[in-house]
Amino acid sequence: MNTSTSYRTHMCAQLNEDNINQEVKLSGWVQKWRDLGGVTFIDLRDRSGIVQIVFDESDNAEAAKLASTLRNEYVIQVCGNVVKRAEETINPNLPTGTIEVKCHSLKVLDAAQTPPIYIDDSDTSKESIRLKYRYLDLRKQNMKHSIMMRHKVTSFVRNFLDDEGFIDIETPMLTKPTPEGARDFLVPSRVQKGSFFALPQSPQLYKQILMVSGFDRYYQIVKCFRDEDLRQDRQPEFTQIDMELSFVNEEDIMDTNERMVAALFKKFKGIDISLPLKKMPYKEAMERFGSDKPDTRFGFELVDVKEVFKNTGFKVFADNIAKGGDIRAINAKGCGESFSRREIDALVEYVKIYKAKGLSWVKVTDDGIKSPIEKFLSDEEINQLLVTTNAEPDDLILIVGDKPSIVFDALGHLRLELARKLEIEYDREYDFLWVTDFPLFEYSEEENRYMAKHHPFTCPREEDIPLMESNPGAVRAKAYDMVVNGVEMGGGSIRIHNKELQEKMFAALGFTKENAEEQFGFLLEAFKYGTPPHGGIAFGLDRMMMLLLDIDNIREVIAFPKTQNHGCLMTSAPGPAKEESLVELGIELDLEN
Amino acid sequence: MNTSTSYRTHMCAQLNEDNINQEVKLSGWVQKWRDLGGVTFIDLRDRSGIVQIVFDESDNAEAAKLASTLRNEYVIQVCGNVVKRAEETINPNLPTGTIEVKCHSLKVLDAAQTPPIYIDDSDTSKESIRLKYRYLDLRKQNMKHSIMMRHKVTSFVRNFLDDEGFIDIETPMLTKPTPEGARDFLVPSRVQKGSFFALPQSPQLYKQILMVSGFDRYYQIVKCFRDEDLRQDRQPEFTQIDMELSFVNEEDIMDTNERMVAALFKKFKGIDISLPLKKMPYKEAMERFGSDKPDTRFGFELVDVKEVFKNTGFKVFADNIAKGGDIRAINAKGCGESFSRREIDALVEYVKIYKAKGLSWVKVTDDGIKSPIEKFLSDEEINQLLVTTNAEPDDLILIVGDKPSIVFDALGHLRLELARKLEIEYDREYDFLWVTDFPLFEYSEEENRYMAKHHPFTCPREEDIPLMESNPGAVRAKAYDMVVNGVEMGGGSIRIHNKELQEKMFAALGFTKENAEEQFGFLLEAFKYGTPPHGGIAFGLDRMMMLLLDIDNIREVIAFPKTQNHGCLMTSAPGPAKEESLVELGIELDLEN
Repeated sequence: MNTSTSYRTHMCAQLNEDNINQEVKLSGWVQKWRDLGGVTFIDLRDRSGIVQIVFDESDNAEAAKLASTLRNEYVIQVCGNVVKRAEETINPNLPTGTIEVKCHSLKVLDAAQTPPIYIDDSDTSKESIRLKYRYLDLRKQNMKHSIMMRHKVTSFVRNFLDDEGFIDIETPMLTKPTPEGARDFLVPSRVQKGSFFALPQSPQLYKQILMVSGFDRYYQIVKCFRDEDLRQDRQPEFTQIDMELSFVNEEDIMDTNERMVAALFKKFKGIDISLPLKKMPYKEAMERFGSDKPDTRFGFELVDVKEVFKNTGFKVFADNIAKGGDIRAINAKGCGESFSRREIDALVEYVKIYKAKGLSWVKVTDDGIKSPIEKFLSDEEINQLLVTTNAEPDDLILIVGDKPSIVFDALGHLRLELARKLEIEYDREYDFLWVTDFPLFEYSEEENRYMAKHHPFTCPREEDIPLMESNPGAVRAKAYDMVVNGVEMGGGSIRIHNKELQEKMFAALGFTKENAEEQFGFLLEAFKYGTPPHGGIAFGLDRMMMLLLDIDNIREVIAFPKTQNHGCLMTSAPGPAKEESLVELGIELDLEN
Repeated sequence: MNTSTSYRTHMCAQLNEDNINQEVKLSGWVQKWRDLGGVTFIDLRDRSGIVQIVFDESDNAEAAKLASTLRNEYVIQVCGNVVKRAEETINPNLPTGTIEVKCHSLKVLDAAQTPPIYIDDSDTSKESIRLKYRYLDLRKQNMKHSIMMRHKVTSFVRNFLDDEGFIDIETPMLTKPTPEGARDFLVPSRVQKGSFFALPQSPQLYKQILMVSGFDRYYQIVKCFRDEDLRQDRQPEFTQIDMELSFVNEEDIMDTNERMVAALFKKFKGIDISLPLKKMPYKEAMERFGSDKPDTRFGFELVDVKEVFKNTGFKVFADNIAKGGDIRAINAKGCGESFSRREIDALVEYVKIYKAKGLSWVKVTDDGIKSPIEKFLSDEEINQLLVTTNAEPDDLILIVGDKPSIVFDALGHLRLELARKLEIEYDREYDFLWVTDFPLFEYSEEENRYMAKHHPFTCPREEDIPLMESNPGAVRAKAYDMVVNGVEMGGGSIRIHNKELQEKMFAALGFTKENAEEQFGFLLEAFKYGTPPHGGIAFGLDRMMMLLLDIDNIREVIAFPKTQNHGCLMTSAPGPAKEESLVELGIELDLEN
């Protein structure tokens, strides 16, 4: 890699003992300086790393004098000779630690004030300060590493997909607003006043259209947008590794993608993932782990205990069963004695986050059980509960009875909370699996109708098509998510490629014919002229980087992230618009509502 | 490249004589069919190309019967044996023309109606129909070639830049509105009601910030946005190959980029571009070619003839000189006799497009001159005009006297018009040069102030800095455009990297201190903490593709382009927004103004 320019012959960390006795020119930032009176030592930093440079007044008095005025973060250019360091001054922690550059000339390219944050990985500034001074924050070794890794990962992915016959095709950023799915970011059109573009939530329709066009294999590493209130691991604009393939079934897509991910983790983490990855149907994932993105590195699996309480006198459970609710439990093995009442109460509070009305607990001891609900339970019930949950003395059984979705959600999160609390040591660093056979529909109480679990273009399993009208909730989709350590890294599906089935899908989602026509007419029209079977997947690049870098904070893997209120602390975006601009767009502010 | 799936063992055009006697499975579209009664020939098409398949009822009656019902654009899957064609049926125009596949099984994956456009390069449908049915238009060989070439070009560029030490870093799409430059697309913020994001016109500030951060070499192939009324070669969203480098001067940047472009044109056009490219200062480009993006493949250069007319009795020229105007001419060599009066009148009309009030012409004959203005000119003037323009019998001298900017613009376009009209044969297909030393400022009569010719971050030449206040129009910038065949393919500059100079620049542009602070405060702040000398360039990918593909229409190098009114004829974007969405955003429509 040749990066020499008019300002330098080498980058700092390119130098090594091979360069000894060479005259070099370097440019970079002062990372550290020590002025020993007549001799100044500088750690000079550029993207490549650090090298020590020395100004000695016995070599060049003028340069040494100027060097003594340097301060941290000054940008300088130096010329000098590479020399071997004296044995006792070798720095084994620095790749360039056996050499230094004795300088005879120095030019200050730019002076620097004292930075408001410490330019070092050990900096403890508040995140808001770091984001405001992002340009300084990005000078840190760990941030630089994240951003450069991201480049290496996308390069690797591009090369992999190139080799697999994928074609990178750009799809529009100014698209049509869609009624389904998350909230769009809208862009008012000036030329067509009163109309709006939407920023894409994903290139879904375009990539399907590209399959109709016969491009066969498409990919794009592409910005997508969702105007949502942010959780910790979300950003209003995020990046997807997006792809679509023709003439494939689920197996083909899973195969290609697990090979890609395995190659990635081999290259960047040095770990061997054995393929094919295990596959777990959605139903099993929910019933065993209470989650469609299960972390299967540890137990605490859910157990169905509804049968135990079918005739219970415990009114809470009885009422719940009467309303069609579920009762499931987790056996927190070995937590019976160690968990204090306060710790258990904290768990009771914890499940409330997930809308569970309560958490019943049963401590198993050598002498029977200890539980606040003991008095409501028959011996038979207690006995069955212990058998069903495979309980032994010192176990703690945690039970939630509620609406099925709440039971899964509360217990699914509870087992993660238990793992965190117990600091469980996993037998493997990464746990990959495919979750398959998602339900095609999800009932929305808010909208009082079935919604698409993934999106309205997902293909149902052939054998379930007859159920689309009679029992929508039971229809399984040809959909799959790649789950890593309890995180959904990517997901996709085989798509509907047939006009009639697509119309049936829209009908099941409550679209009128006119409605479907207005929103997706072009897709239905496209499906008239010969559409190949096709499917795809999209990975969240930000999440993938978090996993590859072992970073919890999504903002650390993005050069210029947004905060929770969608703002950029560096540029203070968003900002006011000029009145004339709004007039041109045919809109005005109305902040009353 | 392994693209076999459950639906195919090969892609169509992968097959050749090496596959003879192999059993293959193929999937694709029916490009053509001939039913010869009992035998059906199909041209089967996929992305790779075409192969002939044959159904013979003597092989498999059922398949052959079904095959006879196939029509164009049906999507089918076939199994069969690769066989050598009989000598007399070999098709030399097809890469797979020496073989065919004798099929014993056929599955119709999707039927197709007759497409509304002819799926062939010879299709002559109106562009609006082609754009509406883009998915069918993209099935054509030439469109597929354009889009696949675009992928190959971006892959090549990425690999080149990787090798040169560049890092691909994503910059935000939701940025802060800027007052300078073209009109922004605005995105109302829901979370910060009343505020707006702007879609980036370029990642200019972010890439400079990345240099402040020490990333040293950044690139991105990135969507940019300008809400402008469209000319033929513009799109509201367009793609740039964008880069920025630290510790460089103009020569370093030009060197890197001309090597990149030369490698591109070598790879994809097979032509050798000799490096370094020639450089032409802006002033010379204007004076010789009347354009800052001169096509230097032919003559018709401009000649300054103001001196000739300094004491003229021709009132039009005399008045123009009195007002400080210019008078320049083109000698259209050898056009004196061949151009009819009507043809010359058309040229007079032509220059009016560029606001020239008139075009004077002088035909040179063996017996003196023929010209409508002859009667106003002295013998001395005529003589000097002929000498200055190096005129000979049969030449046609075309003269514009007007404001300098109009003279350049009118004559600059006139020489292109002459070249088109005469269908000049160029001695070389591609003509590359750098135009350098652009003016830093451009006076805007509309705004009644100096504006930045490129943008407010462009660095002036050191020796011209003292002129920034006294004579802004004379300040030259460290800016450079790469011009190819009269098209600006890319352009960039060395940036200001010093807070004081940047403030001086803002002052020269009429920014108040508060104004500069509000808009670009974060950049000025960043410049306090040690900024490396840096500069960059951006290429228009769409234009680059047009040049590489010899295509005049920008919409042919983009998969899903917009029309002149910013619309997408396929999806009918933009579209209406839901009333609730507008309420959430704190805006309402106001279409009265």
